[in-house]
Amino acid sequence: MKRELAIALVSGGMDSCVAAALAAQEHRLALLHVSYGQRTWRRELEAFRGIAAHYGVEQTLVADIGYLSTIGGSSLTDSEMSVQPADLNRSGIPSSYVPFRNTHFLAIAVSWGEVIGAGRIFIGAVEPDSSGYPDCREVYYKVFNELIRVGTRPETHIEVVAPLIRMKKSEIVKLGLKLGAPLQLTWSCYRNDNVPCGDCDSCALRAKGFEEAGAIDPIVKHVIS
Amino acid sequence: MKRELAIALVSGGMDSCVAAALAAQEHRLALLHVSYGQRTWRRELEAFRGIAAHYGVEQTLVADIGYLSTIGGSSLTDSEMSVQPADLNRSGIPSSYVPFRNTHFLAIAVSWGEVIGAGRIFIGAVEPDSSGYPDCREVYYKVFNELIRVGTRPETHIEVVAPLIRMKKSEIVKLGLKLGAPLQLTWSCYRNDNVPCGDCDSCALRAKGFEEAGAIDPIVKHVIS
Repeated sequence: MKRELAIALVSGGMDSCVAAALAAQEHRLALLHVSYGQRTWRRELEAFRGIAAHYGVEQTLVADIGYLSTIGGSSLTDSEMSVQPADLNRSGIPSSYVPFRNTHFLAIAVSWGEVIGAGRIFIGAVEPDSSGYPDCREVYYKVFNELIRVGTRPETHIEVVAPLIRMKKSEIVKLGLKLGAPLQLTWSCYRNDNVPCGDCDSCALRAKGFEEAGAIDPIVKHVIS
Repeated sequence: MKRELAIALVSGGMDSCVAAALAAQEHRLALLHVSYGQRTWRRELEAFRGIAAHYGVEQTLVADIGYLSTIGGSSLTDSEMSVQPADLNRSGIPSSYVPFRNTHFLAIAVSWGEVIGAGRIFIGAVEPDSSGYPDCREVYYKVFNELIRVGTRPETHIEVVAPLIRMKKSEIVKLGLKLGAPLQLTWSCYRNDNVPCGDCDSCALRAKGFEEAGAIDPIVKHVIS
């Protein structure tokens, strides 16, 4: 029996890799990567290609939304802002927030999904242990699914699923290891594209996740202090 | 008193020009144009620039989402599909439907609006007399505004308004003429970028609108049969 097609959004990071690994258990896969002028885009695209090859996915789409870096407003895309050092107890929304970013990603996934006939879209968004981005909360995905219902053809039935949304980073690491997700191919650092800086929010969260899971991060080549 | 900033989405067509004219009455304006690989993009961009100059708008953004034509699925962007001749009584969604298109436009407007501090986004979407696109219906904008509320910073308050949503094309023509909107600069044809074909849905709707308004279309240089 031919399984239903799903699109997995794969940034190149660990969370989306684990979400794709979950999707691969139930679905035929199509993989979407969106480049938006973030500092580490080359390394993330390399990670995406590696993950697509790992799962033998033929249907891939790389979309460029470089206008997000023209718009600016985030330390991830604006070269005049610096990436803050990690502070996982910081309150409020960090400077790495890219305004309304996941809406762009999901809009592309839905447009593509409507054409290729996908039934589900997997996104690796995480609410606890995440950086407090508003578009990584469960309520956001609930409303987005309503938007798909009212904004597409009546015969289109696409659902966005965020299977990691309630997980802590350590649970994601454990799940990834259990599913055999290729975590060695993923990239999380916001700053560098050769050696993880170990000092940005994303590096710190990843390190904390592996530590709490009692596992060794396959990409760490130096000790994160 | 400095008036609140609004972003008007200006495609280059008549409806968005009239929506921008309405916005200009109450707001300082920023204008957004999105190019998505549609057949007539050069002519529409020229119309956008003319409208921006007409209103003396300095803050403009032209965003390219060419990946929509890579995705295909619409006669507006897919060179292997042809634009259907006009049939305003056709039921169902026409081949010119670009899957989930307005979500891409609005996502860009919201991201930009969050950075430049806009309070409202004007879009020239029209429900009656339109082509039956699902993302041109009032319910879609209601849900989109909810998505902005849950998907942006808590201090961000941006509302999408679709002031023409219930108007017939003839009412839009009358309103545009009353407001002195530069309709002579606008472009509606889906097929050509020099002389309107007169035969696509968009040309037919425009012609019907001017006829019912008892006005002459300033861009028509030949008789539409």
